[in-house]
Amino acid sequence: MPQIRTIVSAMLLAGSTSIASAWEALPTTAPAPANNPTTTEKIELGRTLFHDPRLSSTGTVSCASCHNVMAGGEDNRPNSMGVHGQTGGRSAPTVWNSAFNKVQFWDGRAASLEAQASGPVTNPIEMGMKSWDDVVTRLKSIDGYLVAFKKAFPNEDISEETATKAIAAYERTLITPNSPYDKYAKGNKSALSAQEVRGLKKMAEIGCLSCHSGAAFNGKGDFREFPAIYNSFLEKQYQFSNDEGLFEVTKKQEDKHFFKIPTLRNIALTAPYFHNGSVKTLEKAVKVMATTQLGRKLSNKEVDDIVAFLNALTGEFPKQSLPTLPATPGKTFN
Amino acid sequence: MPQIRTIVSAMLLAGSTSIASAWEALPTTAPAPANNPTTTEKIELGRTLFHDPRLSSTGTVSCASCHNVMAGGEDNRPNSMGVHGQTGGRSAPTVWNSAFNKVQFWDGRAASLEAQASGPVTNPIEMGMKSWDDVVTRLKSIDGYLVAFKKAFPNEDISEETATKAIAAYERTLITPNSPYDKYAKGNKSALSAQEVRGLKKMAEIGCLSCHSGAAFNGKGDFREFPAIYNSFLEKQYQFSNDEGLFEVTKKQEDKHFFKIPTLRNIALTAPYFHNGSVKTLEKAVKVMATTQLGRKLSNKEVDDIVAFLNALTGEFPKQSLPTLPATPGKTFN
Repeated sequence: MPQIRTIVSAMLLAGSTSIASAWEALPTTAPAPANNPTTTEKIELGRTLFHDPRLSSTGTVSCASCHNVMAGGEDNRPNSMGVHGQTGGRSAPTVWNSAFNKVQFWDGRAASLEAQASGPVTNPIEMGMKSWDDVVTRLKSIDGYLVAFKKAFPNEDISEETATKAIAAYERTLITPNSPYDKYAKGNKSALSAQEVRGLKKMAEIGCLSCHSGAAFNGKGDFREFPAIYNSFLEKQYQFSNDEGLFEVTKKQEDKHFFKIPTLRNIALTAPYFHNGSVKTLEKAVKVMATTQLGRKLSNKEVDDIVAFLNALTGEFPKQSLPTLPATPGKTFN
Repeated sequence: MPQIRTIVSAMLLAGSTSIASAWEALPTTAPAPANNPTTTEKIELGRTLFHDPRLSSTGTVSCASCHNVMAGGEDNRPNSMGVHGQTGGRSAPTVWNSAFNKVQFWDGRAASLEAQASGPVTNPIEMGMKSWDDVVTRLKSIDGYLVAFKKAFPNEDISEETATKAIAAYERTLITPNSPYDKYAKGNKSALSAQEVRGLKKMAEIGCLSCHSGAAFNGKGDFREFPAIYNSFLEKQYQFSNDEGLFEVTKKQEDKHFFKIPTLRNIALTAPYFHNGSVKTLEKAVKVMATTQLGRKLSNKEVDDIVAFLNALTGEFPKQSLPTLPATPGKTFN
């Protein structure tokens, strides 16, 4: 890892012209998998499902509850609150620009948005449905969904597969382009302040961007060990290492404490930070990352510059309209 | 009570012409109190506050969580789920057309939408904030709210009063006109089917409308005893009388089991029914009401006709846009 970092940093430092030309603006559309081409009908159905709390056992938790598209695409909590007030050990990642992650969840265990969407619904502490069979039975009892699924999937039944495909199609529209950084990357050099440019260059110089690379600053689906450098003081404070990351799925030693590289897009809106949401501010998060991943202690000025740049990664949020949830006239949902 | 019912029923039965001319369509605007004239700025601020889960201690429960404007204005649950998964004893009333209630809450203890809006925020099992001082402190820590409050209330501070005024201003826009019944009331006699008209006439004949009177079918803010006729079989099944209604607020004997007359607008969308949400279907709710309030046993055909009419009270829901919640860049909300 350190070698890779050195190479990339050196590359990025080669000159300000080549640095600038290396910057990538966020694409305004996301590619869809061959088996789930995006259509308007799927997006509309997915938007409705995403906001429908009846996808939870209690009827109180929707995808949007923890991935709030009125805000930074998550809930600003250390960990989310699922059905019956239960909480888990990880902090909800943002749904905005998640289309640009190659893998999903903090441990990257889902290879697609479709695969991700199926998880929380039947997780007992998240949405608490007993099974997808139960979800499908409930959806089939709601007339409006019979119509909406038929439009989105004319030749398929309501199923876990079609429901998660629709949700993923909607999520692929959740893209926040035109951040100050994007304008800068496209050539408008005054779109970033001098301080923000200093922050960007500092991040390139010290190695942040060797992992947080690409247009989404998410390493294009790569994994990294976190913390890479064990620090007993930070461990005592934040218990980062209690969570073994990808190892908890694969049980392979080499996956211990490996996590998906999270996007830095809109990071200013997604406090608190890290997989366990233990760090309350972006300033502190930058300091922690420098210590645990790069073995560096940053000056306050360096931290301020980097934070200024990270704020310039806040994009434009496409206006969302509230779906009208299909009704069950004269009765309730279960 | 029985005398009033008899008079009104007799009046409504006087002739089909006079019945039809007695019907009132739902107004498309709601009057605002003199001290809170509706403005666009207040509506926008109120819409944002209404959808902001940071008005709860956990950041997980907004007004919209239990009064879902993507649906029938409530949550289709027997009782709502507040912070930490707690539930109370009463079923959330719909926020749609609540502007036409003279009093709010099942027990009518709030005399205005403004007064109502202040309650759930600091209720320990609903939104769980310790005090409105804490709410105001939190709102003041969010830059976007400083701006939005200044626009809505140029000469006033952020306070419980201004926050609840804004929420009430938004709620006054939540009106669902143009139900089939409204079209009928305005003179389009084909807007209701023969069965729906039979249901309406049956309701007038047997006395339903002596309480559920007026354009919103809510008795214009009046209270009634429920159940009016004690029925031990129904009590055993639904425990209606465990809740003493207005008495729990006033401690006056004459208020025992008195409740605000709820609107019948969009009633098909707000199952389960009654103050404790104990009755799952509209069919059953109609039968229960006939028994406990009118001392009548309805035939299945009569019930079907009435339910058909009640479905014709489902109005058109104005399209809601999702607010963008103002952010706290680099940190979380508490």
